Amino acid sequence: MLLAGLFASSSLSAQSVPEPVDAVDPFIGTGGQGHTFPGAVAPFGMVQLSPDSHVGAARQTYDWASGYRHEDPTILGFSHTHFSGAGHSDLGDFLVMPASGDVVPLEAGATDKPGSGYRSRKADEVATPGYYAVTLTDPGVRAELTAGTRVGVHRYAFPAGKAAHLVLDLRSIIYDYPGKILWSSIRLRPDGVITGMREVRGWAAPRRIFFAMRFSAPPTGHRFVSTEENILYKGFKGPGRGPETLDSLSGRAIVAQLDFGTLAKPLEVKVALSGVDENGALANLAAEAGDFDAIRAKTRSAWADALGAVRIDAPAPMRTNVYTALYHSLMAPSIWSDADGRWRGPDDQVHEGKDFTFHSTFSLWDTFRAEHPLLTLIQSPQKNADFVNSLIASQQTSPFNILPVWQFAGKETWTMIGYHAVPVIADACLKGIAGIDCRAALKAMVASADYGPYGGLSDYMKLGYVPIDREPEAASKTVEYAYDDWTIARLARKLGDVAIAERFEKRAANWRNSFDPKSGFLRARKADGTFRTPFDPTAINYGSDYTEGNAWQYSWFMPHDQGGLFRLLGGDAKAVAKLDAMFDFDNSKIDYSHAEDIAGLIGQYIHGNEPSHHVAYLYDYAGQPWRTQERLKQIVDSQYKPTVDGLAGNDDLGQMSAWLVFTALGFYPVAPGSGEYVIGRPFVDRAEIVLPSGRRFIMIAEGLSEENRYIGKVTLNGRPLNRSYIRDEEIRMGGELRFIMQPAPNKGWATDTKTRPYSMTGYGR
Amino acid sequence: MLLAGLFASSSLSAQSVPEPVDAVDPFIGTGGQGHTFPGAVAPFGMVQLSPDSHVGAARQTYDWASGYRHEDPTILGFSHTHFSGAGHSDLGDFLVMPASGDVVPLEAGATDKPGSGYRSRKADEVATPGYYAVTLTDPGVRAELTAGTRVGVHRYAFPAGKAAHLVLDLRSIIYDYPGKILWSSIRLRPDGVITGMREVRGWAAPRRIFFAMRFSAPPTGHRFVSTEENILYKGFKGPGRGPETLDSLSGRAIVAQLDFGTLAKPLEVKVALSGVDENGALANLAAEAGDFDAIRAKTRSAWADALGAVRIDAPAPMRTNVYTALYHSLMAPSIWSDADGRWRGPDDQVHEGKDFTFHSTFSLWDTFRAEHPLLTLIQSPQKNADFVNSLIASQQTSPFNILPVWQFAGKETWTMIGYHAVPVIADACLKGIAGIDCRAALKAMVASADYGPYGGLSDYMKLGYVPIDREPEAASKTVEYAYDDWTIARLARKLGDVAIAERFEKRAANWRNSFDPKSGFLRARKADGTFRTPFDPTAINYGSDYTEGNAWQYSWFMPHDQGGLFRLLGGDAKAVAKLDAMFDFDNSKIDYSHAEDIAGLIGQYIHGNEPSHHVAYLYDYAGQPWRTQERLKQIVDSQYKPTVDGLAGNDDLGQMSAWLVFTALGFYPVAPGSGEYVIGRPFVDRAEIVLPSGRRFIMIAEGLSEENRYIGKVTLNGRPLNRSYIRDEEIRMGGELRFIMQPAPNKGWATDTKTRPYSMTGYGR
Repeated sequence: MLLAGLFASSSLSAQSVPEPVDAVDPFIGTGGQGHTFPGAVAPFGMVQLSPDSHVGAARQTYDWASGYRHEDPTILGFSHTHFSGAGHSDLGDFLVMPASGDVVPLEAGATDKPGSGYRSRKADEVATPGYYAVTLTDPGVRAELTAGTRVGVHRYAFPAGKAAHLVLDLRSIIYDYPGKILWSSIRLRPDGVITGMREVRGWAAPRRIFFAMRFSAPPTGHRFVSTEENILYKGFKGPGRGPETLDSLSGRAIVAQLDFGTLAKPLEVKVALSGVDENGALANLAAEAGDFDAIRAKTRSAWADALGAVRIDAPAPMRTNVYTALYHSLMAPSIWSDADGRWRGPDDQVHEGKDFTFHSTFSLWDTFRAEHPLLTLIQSPQKNADFVNSLIASQQTSPFNILPVWQFAGKETWTMIGYHAVPVIADACLKGIAGIDCRAALKAMVASADYGPYGGLSDYMKLGYVPIDREPEAASKTVEYAYDDWTIARLARKLGDVAIAERFEKRAANWRNSFDPKSGFLRARKADGTFRTPFDPTAINYGSDYTEGNAWQYSWFMPHDQGGLFRLLGGDAKAVAKLDAMFDFDNSKIDYSHAEDIAGLIGQYIHGNEPSHHVAYLYDYAGQPWRTQERLKQIVDSQYKPTVDGLAGNDDLGQMSAWLVFTALGFYPVAPGSGEYVIGRPFVDRAEIVLPSGRRFIMIAEGLSEENRYIGKVTLNGRPLNRSYIRDEEIRMGGELRFIMQPAPNKGWATDTKTRPYSMTGYGR
Repeated sequence: MLLAGLFASSSLSAQSVPEPVDAVDPFIGTGGQGHTFPGAVAPFGMVQLSPDSHVGAARQTYDWASGYRHEDPTILGFSHTHFSGAGHSDLGDFLVMPASGDVVPLEAGATDKPGSGYRSRKADEVATPGYYAVTLTDPGVRAELTAGTRVGVHRYAFPAGKAAHLVLDLRSIIYDYPGKILWSSIRLRPDGVITGMREVRGWAAPRRIFFAMRFSAPPTGHRFVSTEENILYKGFKGPGRGPETLDSLSGRAIVAQLDFGTLAKPLEVKVALSGVDENGALANLAAEAGDFDAIRAKTRSAWADALGAVRIDAPAPMRTNVYTALYHSLMAPSIWSDADGRWRGPDDQVHEGKDFTFHSTFSLWDTFRAEHPLLTLIQSPQKNADFVNSLIASQQTSPFNILPVWQFAGKETWTMIGYHAVPVIADACLKGIAGIDCRAALKAMVASADYGPYGGLSDYMKLGYVPIDREPEAASKTVEYAYDDWTIARLARKLGDVAIAERFEKRAANWRNSFDPKSGFLRARKADGTFRTPFDPTAINYGSDYTEGNAWQYSWFMPHDQGGLFRLLGGDAKAVAKLDAMFDFDNSKIDYSHAEDIAGLIGQYIHGNEPSHHVAYLYDYAGQPWRTQERLKQIVDSQYKPTVDGLAGNDDLGQMSAWLVFTALGFYPVAPGSGEYVIGRPFVDRAEIVLPSGRRFIMIAEGLSEENRYIGKVTLNGRPLNRSYIRDEEIRMGGELRFIMQPAPNKGWATDTKTRPYSMTGYGR
């Protein structure tokens, strides 16, 4: 009865505060090392239409991973594909830049010499979800961008009386180096539509992408130019040897000038992408009707729906932080299949999606932690099934017969470690997401976990750990494999496959094989069983025992068995002391400037990178939840700001943001696959999760303030909740979680071992 | 009645002489500059499985155009695609080479250092249509090849007790140069089938080709190696960093070692190709059942059928020459669509063939002359419709909206001049070949003829000739365009499109605009109307007034209006004197060693290249057919021998061979589109054309001998034929053409203007 009443209530949302879609600030993370982009994208859209500002190849691999930095004074143009917060760079496909007047430069020109090329200085930049605008002061053009699911739309207002042009530079790419573009082509069709493609040997290789581009006013003239030199068959490049302008050109360095004459109205350019072929791009273009304003309105409404899944009451800065985080967590995985269901897979062949929409851009080492668990909660079962079915389809079409590791454009990049598609799938199946063939999923998971050539797996299966003398980053791999294995066992149990369950339960304990109880740290063993020396728990190096981290961060990665770890460390008190030692570590003598992805340090806790993300919640496992509450405040206060450089590190396709969304709500999925969220403390006054089922789960932080930073009491649907975790099904059922906040810690709440979150070998649960 | 009796008769074929299929010697033309290949191919098959022997890149562009020269002492391996007699080189896709024993070299090694790599010395080479075998003396392997429509099959007998291996070198390509291979990949599938692909920036770019390879015994081991150095993402190349062998690899320089252990039986390797994708290759592999012997038998039978279209009685050397010529004329155009009808077209996109099989490899500047007319006569209407429908489909999917110029693998190469798909289509439509939409064809023809940017066409349309100061080889272009235009007019007349007919009849007279009556030669004019100077009728240079020739050869290229030319030259006597001056020219002071394709010289007549091919027949147009008869004997005696170097020049995808087939029968299509064959003299005692309709057309050369070299009398179906041409419909109807040969010229036969072949402005016909 109580529940029924709650479901009906949504009246508490304030009327005077901006709509969620207007609370988002897409510029957050576009400075510092957030690596987000400010441009236009629809939720999970194939097209990310955004400005590029990068300069040459220098530091593009990292600083310009999204192609753009807010502090750059110039804009190079607008391209259609971008990663949101990745730690490495690529994309930037099909750069379009307006030009006005008589001279149309076909080279970008230098940043420090404005006017030397098509690159322009900028002014009056604005961005909201699905919309971006800027004034390009050099050509005098107001540029606006919006995006639908598989289309991007540009609108350019040219200066009155001046000839309007566009430069379409197929050479421009984020992180440019010789030989990266394997091939490209462009074609003006008789109906004025331009199609083309490029094949890129980049982070994933070969990556193929096609486009179709329609103009509100067809080009009145065009010039397709190949700037490559010293190539054979120069004479065979096309039929023309005279001055005529040809309608098609292909090569490895193509740039196009498109002329539109003097225009009475702004020029609209509607661009569709496809990973399949030009016909796919043309069909995708046709599939989304409407002009700039129509697409913009539709996408704004899609964002309003998507962001409406969590209705938040909080002071403006926190509300902006959390809504922007929610926005950033709803971009990837991105749609990769065409409107007709075809997609290009890991084998570089074209496949047809039956009953699902293929998605790609899986940054799984990051997103298995909180990003995917957030999506399982707030996105529809169909969308979550799409993600999982895309992973399974990828495995089935993989030349290696394994699930994606770090995939985009349907292609594997072999970036980071682990087989973390496994926990994503297991978690979805264990949560009962409809539309997934979980038996096929289990098969795909086991195939990946048993694939010997990958990352030392054959040794891992033989020795019970990855040996560092045969495989780098062996300690990290061992513990991450062990966790992934546990999720396989969990799903196998659910499906009644006892043999698989028992085999992988055994493997789930493998984290112990790389743990050194003597030093109290996770360490890498050699094949002969000895730990590698010398050992420095603060060292962060590539090829070390660890992946983007050190012993301090990685010694906590057994999310499925923190209780087991704590016993190994000598009990709760020792575990808490070690956690404190990490957070309170004195870094004054340490220099990590050589290492990427090491940012947002609180002692040896590194919030800017994922291995630390669950660690503040671990005090709960020692029966000291008030310490988790303290640490969370420390992290939220220092690592998230509603500013351009407000993210402590790469957003990593939504993981950094999903952490904040969960944490703001008061709970976090430390061990996806466990069906539990570990309770931290809330950072917003009230939140209402509009569940895909239509039910609502309301979180109320009674009395929350700067002073009232501790949980005094928790109730679930009015009844006291005397444990430091909440179950997934409790949320899905709808209801009310109420935190009564107070200025002092409640050292009596959820201290008992029976009230602590799940551990494989802990607490008799 | 007479005809009925003749149709029943085929008993004259000698029983003691070898079957046509055994009269063929595939080694003819594999030395000298014939550029043919000796390997296995089915009629018009997609796969040409043949040995490659080329060394490095030197002279590969020309001498090794087919990848192989008979005199080479070593063999590099066996690849699946080859041109037959092209004047430029490419292909050689997916080179397979056996190796035996413990050491498997992955590099070819030097020709002069046998044993330094996988290249081997050779012995006991044999070849018949659809079959090739050789002993590779270094690994001690007997290698046999056969081919079906879309498959090639290898059979390797390894030395007893030695481990059997194959090297599959995706780096090997005919005419190799840096950067040519844009991408390649290889994948071992769980069922032991290997698939892969490569993208090539070669003569046509980009060219994509895929393969699927099944072994009679699956590999027991494999090693996929990338030999490219200094590439980014080396660490991301695959999941393995250890010694494990991975199942898939891609890059720009891939070589594979496949191990089979010690084999009790010869190893069979069945390989299918596809221009579409790997699934296409797999489906093509499945579509053709049977092992080596089954495919070999099927293809032998296909060749027996195809060669059976012309049953020839002649002494052995001439029989071998003509059957080998017939064999070489039945290879291209090659099938390019997959078994399921899909094909990759000029726009690099995949299309579906509706009701026809897409063919490519159109060497049209060569083959419009005699090769396609031969095919219209002896190949089924369906096959001829396939050729024409492929040309039309190519125009419809061309980014330039024009018909192919020189196309292979569905892609344009922009090689040679003219729009000679036009006469091929016109000739087929005018001959009433069923299954062609001739109105759509006419549209495609006009689109090509009106495409201004191509080869000076916009100037040609304005000025009536191509101006040499704006476009090279302008004189050749002008006359070839004029002839092509005449065929458009002919088809338009037939279809009743008077406007098109009149416009193109006017253009057909344009050859006059580039003819200089004063010098008596075709010459290139400048845009201002003056002829370019200095003028040397013997000069052969790129960028000259002419294409692969000079004024001597090109002044005769108005096949549709030789009568008009002869009047312009001052009448028949002057024309004959000029023809004689050409044939009897003293070349002692001339050096053409700098020019490719200039071979087979008789004075300034150059049989090794196409512009001369119709010229010996032109005496007929002057009423002196006995002079044609003399010249033909001079040419046949000197230019065709049943030896490895027996072809005077590049076979050019069958044109050089089709010339011999027609000439041997006693007639030749000087002006395809006219519906006439000009009578020369026969070179075989008897020939029976088994027409696709089932009717038979028999040619009897009564009394033919070295002495009886002149035609005394000609009868058609028993009635005297007093004209120097025969109509296409007369042949198609079936019947008997009888030449009564004699030692002295008959200077009274077919001398009258009314008895001469068609001329647009001649003889009042």
